[in-house]
Amino acid sequence: MTEAAVPSPSEPDLGTLGIICGGGAFPIVVAEAALKAGRKVFLLPIYGFAEAAAVERYPHEWIHIGAFGKLSGVLRRNGCRQVVFVGTVLRPRISRLRVDWGSLKLLPRVLGMFRGGDDHLLTSVGRIFEEHGFELVGAHQIAPDILVPPGVLGAHQPREEDIDAAHFGQEVVRALGPFDIGQGVVVGGRRILAVEAAEGTDLMLERCRDLRANGRIKLGHKSGVLVKAPKPGQDRRLDLPSIGPRTIELAAEAGLAGVAVEAGGVIAANIEDIVRIADETGLFIVGLDR
Amino acid sequence: MTEAAVPSPSEPDLGTLGIICGGGAFPIVVAEAALKAGRKVFLLPIYGFAEAAAVERYPHEWIHIGAFGKLSGVLRRNGCRQVVFVGTVLRPRISRLRVDWGSLKLLPRVLGMFRGGDDHLLTSVGRIFEEHGFELVGAHQIAPDILVPPGVLGAHQPREEDIDAAHFGQEVVRALGPFDIGQGVVVGGRRILAVEAAEGTDLMLERCRDLRANGRIKLGHKSGVLVKAPKPGQDRRLDLPSIGPRTIELAAEAGLAGVAVEAGGVIAANIEDIVRIADETGLFIVGLDR
Repeated sequence: MTEAAVPSPSEPDLGTLGIICGGGAFPIVVAEAALKAGRKVFLLPIYGFAEAAAVERYPHEWIHIGAFGKLSGVLRRNGCRQVVFVGTVLRPRISRLRVDWGSLKLLPRVLGMFRGGDDHLLTSVGRIFEEHGFELVGAHQIAPDILVPPGVLGAHQPREEDIDAAHFGQEVVRALGPFDIGQGVVVGGRRILAVEAAEGTDLMLERCRDLRANGRIKLGHKSGVLVKAPKPGQDRRLDLPSIGPRTIELAAEAGLAGVAVEAGGVIAANIEDIVRIADETGLFIVGLDR
Repeated sequence: MTEAAVPSPSEPDLGTLGIICGGGAFPIVVAEAALKAGRKVFLLPIYGFAEAAAVERYPHEWIHIGAFGKLSGVLRRNGCRQVVFVGTVLRPRISRLRVDWGSLKLLPRVLGMFRGGDDHLLTSVGRIFEEHGFELVGAHQIAPDILVPPGVLGAHQPREEDIDAAHFGQEVVRALGPFDIGQGVVVGGRRILAVEAAEGTDLMLERCRDLRANGRIKLGHKSGVLVKAPKPGQDRRLDLPSIGPRTIELAAEAGLAGVAVEAGGVIAANIEDIVRIADETGLFIVGLDR
């Protein structure tokens, strides 16, 4: 779980940054941050996840998920020793993996990886990269601006009870760490209303919205807090939890008072957008100490 | 959390059993078990939850939830010293409580009760009963047959990996105990797919079914286990988790291999029905050691 110190761009031997791209806005934010810091980039968008319009402005080559042989060849040919893996990649179905010769010998390990939670899966992926001579770095190490900072970010202040609820939520995330789930929970007062597992944050918030609408969750309007924090022990280079504009919109639809995330442990592709939506919808947004 | 020893029916001084009835089949199962053991019963169905057709075959008087003054009067007038509280009562909205004079002085405590989880709420309810001279007994103490027994109950055997998954789920329930949630989880392999909080078991299973249908949960058919167990420290007289025919139907729709519950810690109104449905749908059903 050590975070590789990322050498400053003035050091000459870093080579091109390989960016393996899942879906969403993060890959482009990372590419732009690297370019701005004077690094060359080469994008490896994953079929079915990465967005073509965004990645095709950069040098790139599409890859199939699971095709590790091709991936490592492309990385080497393009001089990428450092690699970032960023963007949404839903857990693939094993039968859909496009296994090539390079990954065939890894297959027994890959199958084992699929038995556990997401963190287990990603840690195993990270280890395979390193054994093949690549250095895996976190997206937030290339683009530190994506880390949500500490403190109240928008116009709306959390009440003391909201902060209490947020801390309670953090405790739940900590307790669930060994089970590789629980990056997101919704807390109302001292009651845990929802715990995120395979469904993801958006569906968890939609559930809270629906349970509230049908009276199963009974809370006054604008109460309850979405809490997001990384699992303890999680490899932060591979899978920091994220929030986006849709997170805030759904938190508002669920009638919550606001969103609390662990400062420095949760990423956002465009924090300004998020804060604007929080301000408009009347939600607070706060970065908590760990 | 001590369980009151229930005197045998031959002891003369037990009086009439007061049964406060929520929804579902459990109140009648408890009433029948008490009658069979030679006890008199008096039912107190709760408006909005209890089913009229079922309770009206017994001596009864309808009550509003929260009307503790009326409730204790009815219990005393009918010679009920021992009281059972059984059946589904969804957490009421505070504004819907019908507060009478008897409960008015309890109001500050009642409001405090609503801040925590269900267990917190129910433990507080139990304490108030006892302070007023009633003895609260568990439904399973009156009708021990409702406790799910240990071992494989139906025709289908769990595989070793199912039992491993079930034990993993039990660990999650234990870890979540202090947060007053998590009586139900769904485990696939070593991965927690869903954790039950405010939504209840049925909605959690519907979510797994939907996530599987849309590919968000990727598992072969007939794999994954629903695990139900009481929260550690839970007052078992008031709120044992339950399973019913619908639980098994939804577990089957979610493509699970079976259902594992903590033996002696989970109740079922009609275990024969449940086993029959499990047999028909190809699911195992097993009572686990604690």
